[in-house]
Amino acid sequence: MKNCIPIGSSSHQAFHSTGNSRGNVTEVIPCQRLASLMVEIPVDDLDLRAAKIRLLCTDIDGVLTTGALHYGLEAGHSKAFNVRDGAATKWLQRAGIPVAFISGLDAAATRHRAQDLGVEDCFAGHLNKLPVLDQLCAKYGLAYDQVAHLGDDLPDLPLLSRVGLACCPSDAAPEVKEACHWVTEVPGGLGLLRLVAERILKAQGRWADTVGKYGA
Amino acid sequence: MKNCIPIGSSSHQAFHSTGNSRGNVTEVIPCQRLASLMVEIPVDDLDLRAAKIRLLCTDIDGVLTTGALHYGLEAGHSKAFNVRDGAATKWLQRAGIPVAFISGLDAAATRHRAQDLGVEDCFAGHLNKLPVLDQLCAKYGLAYDQVAHLGDDLPDLPLLSRVGLACCPSDAAPEVKEACHWVTEVPGGLGLLRLVAERILKAQGRWADTVGKYGA
Amino acid sequence: MKNCIPIGSSSHQAFHSTGNSRGNVTEVIPCQRLASLMVEIPVDDLDLRAAKIRLLCTDIDGVLTTGALHYGLEAGHSKAFNVRDGAATKWLQRAGIPVAFISGLDAAATRHRAQDLGVEDCFAGHLNKLPVLDQLCAKYGLAYDQVAHLGDDLPDLPLLSRVGLACCPSDAAPEVKEACHWVTEVPGGLGLLRLVAERILKAQGRWADTVGKYGA
Amino acid sequence: MKNCIPIGSSSHQAFHSTGNSRGNVTEVIPCQRLASLMVEIPVDDLDLRAAKIRLLCTDIDGVLTTGALHYGLEAGHSKAFNVRDGAATKWLQRAGIPVAFISGLDAAATRHRAQDLGVEDCFAGHLNKLPVLDQLCAKYGLAYDQVAHLGDDLPDLPLLSRVGLACCPSDAAPEVKEACHWVTEVPGGLGLLRLVAERILKAQGRWADTVGKYGA
Repeated sequence: MKNCIPIGSSSHQAFHSTGNSRGNVTEVIPCQRLASLMVEIPVDDLDLRAAKIRLLCTDIDGVLTTGALHYGLEAGHSKAFNVRDGAATKWLQRAGIPVAFISGLDAAATRHRAQDLGVEDCFAGHLNKLPVLDQLCAKYGLAYDQVAHLGDDLPDLPLLSRVGLACCPSDAAPEVKEACHWVTEVPGGLGLLRLVAERILKAQGRWADTVGKYGA
Repeated sequence: MKNCIPIGSSSHQAFHSTGNSRGNVTEVIPCQRLASLMVEIPVDDLDLRAAKIRLLCTDIDGVLTTGALHYGLEAGHSKAFNVRDGAATKWLQRAGIPVAFISGLDAAATRHRAQDLGVEDCFAGHLNKLPVLDQLCAKYGLAYDQVAHLGDDLPDLPLLSRVGLACCPSDAAPEVKEACHWVTEVPGGLGLLRLVAERILKAQGRWADTVGKYGA
Repeated sequence: MKNCIPIGSSSHQAFHSTGNSRGNVTEVIPCQRLASLMVEIPVDDLDLRAAKIRLLCTDIDGVLTTGALHYGLEAGHSKAFNVRDGAATKWLQRAGIPVAFISGLDAAATRHRAQDLGVEDCFAGHLNKLPVLDQLCAKYGLAYDQVAHLGDDLPDLPLLSRVGLACCPSDAAPEVKEACHWVTEVPGGLGLLRLVAERILKAQGRWADTVGKYGA
Repeated sequence: MKNCIPIGSSSHQAFHSTGNSRGNVTEVIPCQRLASLMVEIPVDDLDLRAAKIRLLCTDIDGVLTTGALHYGLEAGHSKAFNVRDGAATKWLQRAGIPVAFISGLDAAATRHRAQDLGVEDCFAGHLNKLPVLDQLCAKYGLAYDQVAHLGDDLPDLPLLSRVGLACCPSDAAPEVKEACHWVTEVPGGLGLLRLVAERILKAQGRWADTVGKYGA
């Protein structure tokens, strides 16, 4: 949680320092510890956006993968997904937030990954992504601001400019970074979906449940 | 665009600062913003070279890939291409600039990738690359200065020393770096073709079209 | 060995400097050389913990691998293990310390790797890992403090909070780092098991044997 | 060439600076340019060692690869070799210096790579490597100081401590680094053999021929 400046009521402010309203600060709580203290309190614009999300859409190549397409002896290609993005996909689904794949490339690898994760909405081979978003919004009865999208390249622009929470990896195309609410510090393939999922679950007060399931 | 010092008419100069010819600079425009302002104006030698390109040739291993050759249970090997190099290949083709593969290694993976991208001119297994370049120039009716080549190792030297725009990844062999017009900051396999393609399309005034197709 | 401050008897202290008990230090021995001098002497809490270990359990994805799951033309996935983790697994086994795999994902790759390394206790597809740990402790007649566990994500928490030596890669989830005795500087897939195995063998006075086998 | 301090006759010294023997330096030649000027002159101990090499032996995993062993749906594993190590293997062979693979692991991938590169001496599955070295020395009629070995881990120690030129990647085991003449800055899998091959060919005055073959 990068921008952990609390907003809203003064009771939130109390978490940030033990000083009083006159500015007599007696102890500074490190930002990291602060973040865990107020984990279920939306603290900034990103968290306000995250709190509304009911559907997470994501591009595949360059977002859930590094963008590497492995070609070998046979036609077709393979690609590497991240285990922690997979775990986060399951957490979102259990919280009632479906995950949808919207990829410009048609690939057996993408369909197999979707099947392993129980991703029902897997669109592979759709460079024109906006009609897919509209179809999904209709299916789930959602407005754009209830949707998050993760993308890294130009075909994602029409979605990123419309959805409520637009996120990209650190190595996204410049035009995409410009269009996003959240340019993360994670390059493609190294856990972007996990990062966004945690923020959504925290903003919606469901993170403690997720961690609690594995509690000591 | 590393060297974004405008050249030529004084009207170009006007983009660089809001100061006048006497040196009274009143505002400095950041180099990055400047670059986007004058996106269709050739600003330096590289862009003058890029503006003439009508064919892009590229080596495969170490340029479109990291140079990793995956060997497994069967004879033959696989290798990983980059999704954004693929998108840029399609953009160049649509702009009437064919892309040709000229690789020293013969590999099924290279031919499969060429097929997926509609690359007609796929030469795999040609360590002696100059006759291939000559054949392509004859086919398309082009002079050397209308060709760009991307290479990373010694077999690319005869091409790099002749073409109009010679480019290499940041981890190219020292002799190759010495021979190139543009030693990029991108290592092999991480989007060199995309970077060069964008520069060519921008230098030829076609980048706005490419981005526009995906516009919000 | 990060914390090479000797503890306990003054004879240990003698290794740390050539000064006497009154503080007259005449020569400082570099920490690194010091570590090799006292290689069989438990020097801190981690080594005291390592000296007791009789079983090493480890997660797979994100610990023995980078977390990358390669999907291709067929259902199922592949993943990359590290050759030095494999060598260290054999060393532990020969020292009478079995290695057990406890993975949330069921994967043929994990079972094949276990088979190649002679890992008898291979549990793949167990998100609920604590019953597996208890089963292993019963099988080998061990208490929790005689077990080391290597994990990177939430399903490892119940084990990491119980075992005698809890270790994680540098890119583990924050909650996991919090729960571990040893947050290493090695990211997943790059030799974490090797690092822990060396520490265990050194703390138990068996490292010289291991190196000696390959001695010049 | 890290240590490019010329040794021997004063004519060599003349390359290092244009100053005279009294210390009146008039121009400093950058070390890098200097290195290329005296490319065929052994300048230090490493080059004296390299000049004698008539056989190059190398470990596979962690040296020609990153150490990653990819496991999938079937038994067995795959691994990634580097294209530039392959080119350098051919250069050495053409210069009459055979390349031998000596690997602790038996793997189809290693044998396929050997076949593609014309490596006749491929020993895969030999953890006890010294008898293999002795067999190769007998076959080619060589003494230890005419052999180079590239290794990264403990099983390589008996060879590294005996051969004329012992080299390792930057991420080798500490015991291996200690035993090597040349601890390179290249991690495993990213071109160590290429680096060593270039040094051998330069020290033997054959590099100009190699580059010349590809000359403009």
